[in-house]
Amino acid sequence: MSDLLERLRTGLPAEALITDPDVTASYAHDMASFCEAGTPAVVVLPRTVEQVQHVMRTATELRVPVVPQGARTGLSGAANASDGCIVLSLVRMDRILEISPVDRIAVVEPGVINAVLSRAVNEHGLYYPPDPSSWETCTIGGNIGTASGGLCCVKYGVTAEYVLGLDVVLADGRLLTTGRRTAKGVAGYDLTRLFVGSEGSLGIVVQAVLALKPQPPQQLVLAAEFPSAAAACDAVCRIMERGHTPSLLELMDRTTVRAVNALASMGLPETTEALLLCAFDTPDPAADLAAVGALCTAAGATEVVPADNPAESELLLQARRMSLTALEAVKSATMIDDVCVPRSRLGEMLAGTAAIAERYDLTIGVCSHAGDGNTHPVVCFDHTDPDESRRARESFDAIMALGLELGGTITGEHGVGVLKKEWLARELGETGIELQRGIKAAFDPLGLLNPGKLF
Amino acid sequence: MSDLLERLRTGLPAEALITDPDVTASYAHDMASFCEAGTPAVVVLPRTVEQVQHVMRTATELRVPVVPQGARTGLSGAANASDGCIVLSLVRMDRILEISPVDRIAVVEPGVINAVLSRAVNEHGLYYPPDPSSWETCTIGGNIGTASGGLCCVKYGVTAEYVLGLDVVLADGRLLTTGRRTAKGVAGYDLTRLFVGSEGSLGIVVQAVLALKPQPPQQLVLAAEFPSAAAACDAVCRIMERGHTPSLLELMDRTTVRAVNALASMGLPETTEALLLCAFDTPDPAADLAAVGALCTAAGATEVVPADNPAESELLLQARRMSLTALEAVKSATMIDDVCVPRSRLGEMLAGTAAIAERYDLTIGVCSHAGDGNTHPVVCFDHTDPDESRRARESFDAIMALGLELGGTITGEHGVGVLKKEWLARELGETGIELQRGIKAAFDPLGLLNPGKLF
Repeated sequence: MSDLLERLRTGLPAEALITDPDVTASYAHDMASFCEAGTPAVVVLPRTVEQVQHVMRTATELRVPVVPQGARTGLSGAANASDGCIVLSLVRMDRILEISPVDRIAVVEPGVINAVLSRAVNEHGLYYPPDPSSWETCTIGGNIGTASGGLCCVKYGVTAEYVLGLDVVLADGRLLTTGRRTAKGVAGYDLTRLFVGSEGSLGIVVQAVLALKPQPPQQLVLAAEFPSAAAACDAVCRIMERGHTPSLLELMDRTTVRAVNALASMGLPETTEALLLCAFDTPDPAADLAAVGALCTAAGATEVVPADNPAESELLLQARRMSLTALEAVKSATMIDDVCVPRSRLGEMLAGTAAIAERYDLTIGVCSHAGDGNTHPVVCFDHTDPDESRRARESFDAIMALGLELGGTITGEHGVGVLKKEWLARELGETGIELQRGIKAAFDPLGLLNPGKLF
Repeated sequence: MSDLLERLRTGLPAEALITDPDVTASYAHDMASFCEAGTPAVVVLPRTVEQVQHVMRTATELRVPVVPQGARTGLSGAANASDGCIVLSLVRMDRILEISPVDRIAVVEPGVINAVLSRAVNEHGLYYPPDPSSWETCTIGGNIGTASGGLCCVKYGVTAEYVLGLDVVLADGRLLTTGRRTAKGVAGYDLTRLFVGSEGSLGIVVQAVLALKPQPPQQLVLAAEFPSAAAACDAVCRIMERGHTPSLLELMDRTTVRAVNALASMGLPETTEALLLCAFDTPDPAADLAAVGALCTAAGATEVVPADNPAESELLLQARRMSLTALEAVKSATMIDDVCVPRSRLGEMLAGTAAIAERYDLTIGVCSHAGDGNTHPVVCFDHTDPDESRRARESFDAIMALGLELGGTITGEHGVGVLKKEWLARELGETGIELQRGIKAAFDPLGLLNPGKLF
């Protein structure tokens, strides 16, 4: 231990090392606080690539595990410390190195906050779409590690689709440059994509080339009330089947709507069973919303309210964005699931989740990126009640089992971390896991990078 | 050899095996006929997944290399046979298994022809964008293996972005299902993406889930004449910088324009130095073309001609699509390069290519996916002239060196195959190649799948 600190100090300034146990303890876990987490030996906050290389060389020499971290807003424990590890926090490597409107790329360090980048590129008329709910605090490095999604995915896709190239410090301290600055490129296996969503288990991302889009017109939102989740899902299918491309297509169930009203008096319609939000950022969003409104009515909507202006639209989005926080206030604890199914099966997924809530006698609020078939069932429970806690855990698993049954995945955007390790094995099967381990061994033969995550 | 055939016959119908050397010889190489190619021991044409598994099990037992093939329209020799190999042609597995307008996916076997799929999904109001020049003959499996691009990439991206899930027969015959049918998913390392562009070296794709887009309005094309390549590249930068999203942005140099006229009397303007084609498939393409036309004029265009109707547009596209064929007719042989640079460096790339043509005293016609910075310099030479052949080869390499110098890649969409193996190592560096080999070893420890390709 003292050997570790001594060796780290040879290549790092004093301010880059935190050893005070009271402080290092605060780096022990991400937002999945209920997942197991160990006690770090030291927290390192490098500012340069060379410093990261020094940390990894030291870790390799001394066989010390390394847990990379961004802003620790993850929801699966992927950033949780293991006992005696080096926590490698990249938050101080937070420079935007380049924004090119002609090449439509940004080059950034991993600690840049998502919202900071988004605003910076906006000033150049550009748009960085990935927008996880935590976008005001989460880092690009964390987004890359967990392959984050967000509200915009139904039109713009996920983080993976915006990562063109990476500089990565490997487990042994070597620096790898992979991918490109170009719009296209097929030179060899796509290592860049392999790092995206690898939860820090293959290398430490120290720089990223990100693709940007031209900034679209401001989106306009419509809210539609439905008498049942089934009717709302029918509307979602009709909208997508007709070839519409909304910039957002979100569904809040009654539990979520009530929770949001309780938290912030948003005045959402409490009597509705399902509230669908749809937006367009097209040249004529009002026309697109009118067409979608008609489809909603045909599917049984009792009320269709298009926003008249961007301010009204923003209010509706705020309601949606605070859903998880609002549901967290329902009981003393929550477990947030993240099952994604083919959108044609969304109705079955929601009906099945309601049945699970009833079977386990629990409150489960569901907000969904409906256009993507990605549901976030939030199991609300009293963590001081052992029986309720057990039922919560069982319902959480039942929801994932249902997702797989419907041809879906156990995680649409939150990742595996420690939370869903067992379930990853179920989804991928023996052969899949064996190949994943083979890749891990090729990159990190000593198993030092974020051990105990994924599989 | 007779042992190999005997074993293959135990799991394959007679019609699935070709052993006549005159016929198997025709499977020896793809369109890169000037690359080295061996003599296959046998050509196998399976119709089922089980048959593919039988082939791979047999190959593993007997340690026989396997070269997977689609329609052999590749341009880098990735489908070229090695001596004594099994050529595994997937062209008879050509069923479209499912098209879902709600989920916006198609499920297909690898032998489906790109154009057949494109037309089939059109009938459902859907669009499968990847459109390599060979789209009327090339297969989806080949497109996946080589990560094909096309004219649409500037707006719609490349094949990789449309592959959601794969069924893959591994080297030892095991069947792996990877990826998803869902819009999103982050369960483990992205093995699906790893197979895309792997040129058959990691496994045999036997089924694919492809993402589809809603069918856009028919595109309208504009042609602009420029007095220099530099001015045309300036226009390209202005168009992209202003936030336009053309569905096509192509550049033909004078050599290409003349070659096309010579081949098909297309009436293209022969006096121009650079002909830029730009298209939009937006709701109001004429308005977008007018804006782009103004930018072209500002950049020095001497003539800007928007097409009045889809028929005129189609004619301009036909001219572009026949560019390679036309350049092939200039001399007895051609070598087609595929360097992609950041679009801000496209002008330097074209100027440098012209200088290379002069230095080596060669005709090099260049057509470019200009919006992507992806150039196809076509070196035209007399293959019976040893000195000219040597200069052609040297100029081909000089073009790749220039691309790397400008921050680009040696291959934007044609792949590595045998043609660019040495150059892949230069682009990726020692560490990159070592990791690529590590991945290869994890999937194919005996090195039986398409040996001698990539690295």
